[in-house]
Amino acid sequence: MNTFGEKFKLSIFGESHGSAIGVVIDGLPPGFSPDLDAVNNEMARRAPGQSKLSTPRAETDAVEILSGLFEGKTTGAPLCGIIRNADTRSEDYAPGLPRPGHADLTAYVKYKGFADYRGGGHFSGRLTAPLVFAGALAKQLLAGHGVTISARPLLIGGKPPKEETILNAKQDGDSVGGVVACVANGLPAGLGEPFFGSVESRLSALLFSIPAVKAVEFDDGFTLAGMRGSVANRTPFGILGGLSTGNALHFTVAVKPTPSIALEQDTVDLKTGLPAKITVKGRHDPCIIPRALPVIEAAAAVGLLDLWVIGGFAL
Amino acid sequence: MNTFGEKFKLSIFGESHGSAIGVVIDGLPPGFSPDLDAVNNEMARRAPGQSKLSTPRAETDAVEILSGLFEGKTTGAPLCGIIRNADTRSEDYAPGLPRPGHADLTAYVKYKGFADYRGGGHFSGRLTAPLVFAGALAKQLLAGHGVTISARPLLIGGKPPKEETILNAKQDGDSVGGVVACVANGLPAGLGEPFFGSVESRLSALLFSIPAVKAVEFDDGFTLAGMRGSVANRTPFGILGGLSTGNALHFTVAVKPTPSIALEQDTVDLKTGLPAKITVKGRHDPCIIPRALPVIEAAAAVGLLDLWVIGGFAL
Amino acid sequence: MNTFGEKFKLSIFGESHGSAIGVVIDGLPPGFSPDLDAVNNEMARRAPGQSKLSTPRAETDAVEILSGLFEGKTTGAPLCGIIRNADTRSEDYAPGLPRPGHADLTAYVKYKGFADYRGGGHFSGRLTAPLVFAGALAKQLLAGHGVTISARPLLIGGKPPKEETILNAKQDGDSVGGVVACVANGLPAGLGEPFFGSVESRLSALLFSIPAVKAVEFDDGFTLAGMRGSVANRTPFGILGGLSTGNALHFTVAVKPTPSIALEQDTVDLKTGLPAKITVKGRHDPCIIPRALPVIEAAAAVGLLDLWVIGGFAL
Amino acid sequence: MNTFGEKFKLSIFGESHGSAIGVVIDGLPPGFSPDLDAVNNEMARRAPGQSKLSTPRAETDAVEILSGLFEGKTTGAPLCGIIRNADTRSEDYAPGLPRPGHADLTAYVKYKGFADYRGGGHFSGRLTAPLVFAGALAKQLLAGHGVTISARPLLIGGKPPKEETILNAKQDGDSVGGVVACVANGLPAGLGEPFFGSVESRLSALLFSIPAVKAVEFDDGFTLAGMRGSVANRTPFGILGGLSTGNALHFTVAVKPTPSIALEQDTVDLKTGLPAKITVKGRHDPCIIPRALPVIEAAAAVGLLDLWVIGGFAL
Repeated sequence: MNTFGEKFKLSIFGESHGSAIGVVIDGLPPGFSPDLDAVNNEMARRAPGQSKLSTPRAETDAVEILSGLFEGKTTGAPLCGIIRNADTRSEDYAPGLPRPGHADLTAYVKYKGFADYRGGGHFSGRLTAPLVFAGALAKQLLAGHGVTISARPLLIGGKPPKEETILNAKQDGDSVGGVVACVANGLPAGLGEPFFGSVESRLSALLFSIPAVKAVEFDDGFTLAGMRGSVANRTPFGILGGLSTGNALHFTVAVKPTPSIALEQDTVDLKTGLPAKITVKGRHDPCIIPRALPVIEAAAAVGLLDLWVIGGFAL
Repeated sequence: MNTFGEKFKLSIFGESHGSAIGVVIDGLPPGFSPDLDAVNNEMARRAPGQSKLSTPRAETDAVEILSGLFEGKTTGAPLCGIIRNADTRSEDYAPGLPRPGHADLTAYVKYKGFADYRGGGHFSGRLTAPLVFAGALAKQLLAGHGVTISARPLLIGGKPPKEETILNAKQDGDSVGGVVACVANGLPAGLGEPFFGSVESRLSALLFSIPAVKAVEFDDGFTLAGMRGSVANRTPFGILGGLSTGNALHFTVAVKPTPSIALEQDTVDLKTGLPAKITVKGRHDPCIIPRALPVIEAAAAVGLLDLWVIGGFAL
Repeated sequence: MNTFGEKFKLSIFGESHGSAIGVVIDGLPPGFSPDLDAVNNEMARRAPGQSKLSTPRAETDAVEILSGLFEGKTTGAPLCGIIRNADTRSEDYAPGLPRPGHADLTAYVKYKGFADYRGGGHFSGRLTAPLVFAGALAKQLLAGHGVTISARPLLIGGKPPKEETILNAKQDGDSVGGVVACVANGLPAGLGEPFFGSVESRLSALLFSIPAVKAVEFDDGFTLAGMRGSVANRTPFGILGGLSTGNALHFTVAVKPTPSIALEQDTVDLKTGLPAKITVKGRHDPCIIPRALPVIEAAAAVGLLDLWVIGGFAL
Repeated sequence: MNTFGEKFKLSIFGESHGSAIGVVIDGLPPGFSPDLDAVNNEMARRAPGQSKLSTPRAETDAVEILSGLFEGKTTGAPLCGIIRNADTRSEDYAPGLPRPGHADLTAYVKYKGFADYRGGGHFSGRLTAPLVFAGALAKQLLAGHGVTISARPLLIGGKPPKEETILNAKQDGDSVGGVVACVANGLPAGLGEPFFGSVESRLSALLFSIPAVKAVEFDDGFTLAGMRGSVANRTPFGILGGLSTGNALHFTVAVKPTPSIALEQDTVDLKTGLPAKITVKGRHDPCIIPRALPVIEAAAAVGLLDLWVIGGFAL
């Protein structure tokens, strides 16, 4: 389940504090010259330590490409990109005290105590870095056909985006979430597949694989649900019957607040089963929305490119 | 893309006005005795013609099981169930005038004019009948392990559910949508898979395959997005890190209003490319929420059962 | 595992003595007009009762198409074809005495005693009928691009094919197997995918799903294995590196003798665990090679068409 | 198509002369402590430069594990192992002169001239190293349940294995192929899935992904094909109906001679399209059978372990 795609396939691996994280991408067309500067730009948008609003964990997140690229061009064989983990402070993580709002406890149960708990292990938000890498390539391929994808914050902490909302939360040792709006322009009509292959099904499956995403809405779905049919039918839908209409494709994503906060919280001691207190150390974002934007764009790009190739559109 | 599932696999087929619709279900355990009365009950909940609130198209939606069942017990081989189409009025559908808000135009483009346009063809809401059939079996298997799934209307036409909202719309030749809340109780902790296999990813992929579903929200995601981390972390999450927590699993689904309405609407004539008027004939629901409930439950049951088997939980 | 294909997908279902057997085919291009007479011809080549060399079980094996075809043309949605079972003599089959050389015992173990044992159930050679149906459609699509597939008997009972070999075995209440040679002409170069997608991998996976097939050899593999490189390199390979070369593609298939024979044989009583005797009743082929030819061609056609679409060749 | 497996999944990547080759393995159970010395032993069996019978290309083929292992135990998350390429002599390879008997020409066509041609690129036998790595882990897991897999040469150069056959070929600047017999002991009955999931289908798909494998025979299939049913039915089959019987599982694999030979050969100049001569430089095995043994065992181990988990056998 660490794989996605029928024709543009990702296989994601790695743990936050292991040797490296990465992705194998199968299905890139041969002869494509990726703009590696643009790729690095996307990586930098997601990387920590960019501003006072994000965790100071200093990671360059440089991608080393191990295969699939020869003389600057894709070969058609799988492209594997890896990102070394560095500047990890594993001692910030205690194995027996699951952090509230994190996957620590559920991963502990699922993997029978063997999950790498350091920094969230395989469930860390850090695993979105390889997704951004794959998405950066997907974006370039789509852009070559006039398709662009762009995300922006709609709400932060329940209000129109203001930096002080984040700074206030940070000052309180707390965090805030938000809502992101994303639009894909330039899509042709007829992209998507029937039933489980609807544009919504494919994109939502990708978007919900991003840690902290808790809701996905297409074409202002909750608003549509309150309309009468005669009104709703006049909406410039981006998707009808699961297929793209040729109009701009809009979707909205709800992101919960960063669960790692500086305040002391209640937890359970896994060894004793008794209630305990935890103060999450480590360096964490008071709000991940800014860094989530390229991740959401990447998820959309990956899903749309896969549907593009499945649908037989020329690449 | 008409298939779903890794271990509990569905392959859905059929068109609204063709000979039959159906589903092949692979991955049922051998020796399971389905309660066929309970299956029929689920089919009846979804079937049209149940009340003055739904289309009078009289379909019994009886499922004929062609394989996989021997002496009342599953054999372990694929089970195929088909539902004959009857009482269709294909003459109500004009090939060249796509109905607003429907897949008519996008399917026409995707299938280069060869899609079966009658009643929405493969994109008809009628295709949810085989999903309900599969879901009914999945529900019984889950119930055997204490898992129950239940959906209820949260909003209809933007307001708390009242029958008159629907009747008023019907009287006006119009329709309304709504929001459905669904809860799964009794799930163990640790269900779900990493990344693209998160409970949210798998369920949303299924839910968005239901025509008219336009938003999916887990654990009150939009509300969570407005909280501070210290508050959100105290939420009794049903899912953390994509894995079930052992708490009740809540999700919400936005359903757009039935696009088929009696009022005259604007469309485009596919032959001439010119603007045209259409009055959609046929028998349509002024609100599909009541009939959508078993469909949403079925989608959840199918997704959860698949994760159940993937996760190695005993069946 | 009853499904095959990435782009031209089959989902096969049914049991020998159940209501019906069939297949859902997803991935047919829209607008294709299958020649149904030619399809019936292929079904007749595989059907029993054609000659004194095959079982007199009289089955017309007419395929009823339930979906995916509208006004004689494929719609692009999944096509489901079913074949009703009739003229079955289930009383010929005893549940507790597995027939030697059959799947009776292994299926009993796998499905914990719940497998439909009548006539081999899901493991019956009868399940090749839906494969022939799918193959007949695949053949027509490939033929439209100049690709033809043709199988012929190479050896029967270890000797060059003679009808008397079969008749002698029949007279003795016994059976014979054989070797089939198949050739695909007209393939372009470059068909196939790397590694697990090699032409050999894909075709062999299909061929070995045919009951009784026990060996598959490409390009006279066993002969090649005895050559020196300097000689072998001059062979007009049909496949190199798993990809088609543009030369004719040759492969050979070993088919074991029909395990159902009239002679009394040793078995085990599943209830008592004690040795027992069995005389297999029913109507069985003294040699299945003649009926296996269209099945082998169908398997090849399905595999090649799937690779055709995967490879992006125009359909 | 560089992926294999439903529950024990491999995703293989790399090119012979690129930075690295490797594999992502998803589906390892958490808490498994691989014996890395035993893994290295398997790698060494396949590695070049072991004897005067194999290419002197000196590669240690040490695997660096990037993820999925924490404190010596698998975490349950994907395990990625990479092997750096070193001691490559890319100058030995000319882009425009395809080597006879190799994938050079077919890969050139498939990838429109962009394939990495150096050393066979993605189609190199070197890509079997990650397969051996994955197979080594699979073997250990199976061995924990009493399953052992062992391959041996049956024929070399068409004769019972003698080292001089290889040395003679080497002296002549030529090469020889051979036939390998493999046996899996200790399998339970009932392993395997119906139809496309037969043990033969799954193992053959893996075996034919090994470059140079051109035939696969189960249970002495070609011999069986010449028997009468009454005799064949008394064979101690390893597989019946695609499912394991509990007897030892035997299969035979034909391996063509190494296509890279020192003798001058005919080829075609890709730039001019004219006939040309080529003398393949580089360091090549006069016979790959000795190094193919661990690869064949690995393919079998991977396939059997995947079926093991699919079948619900405890790990």
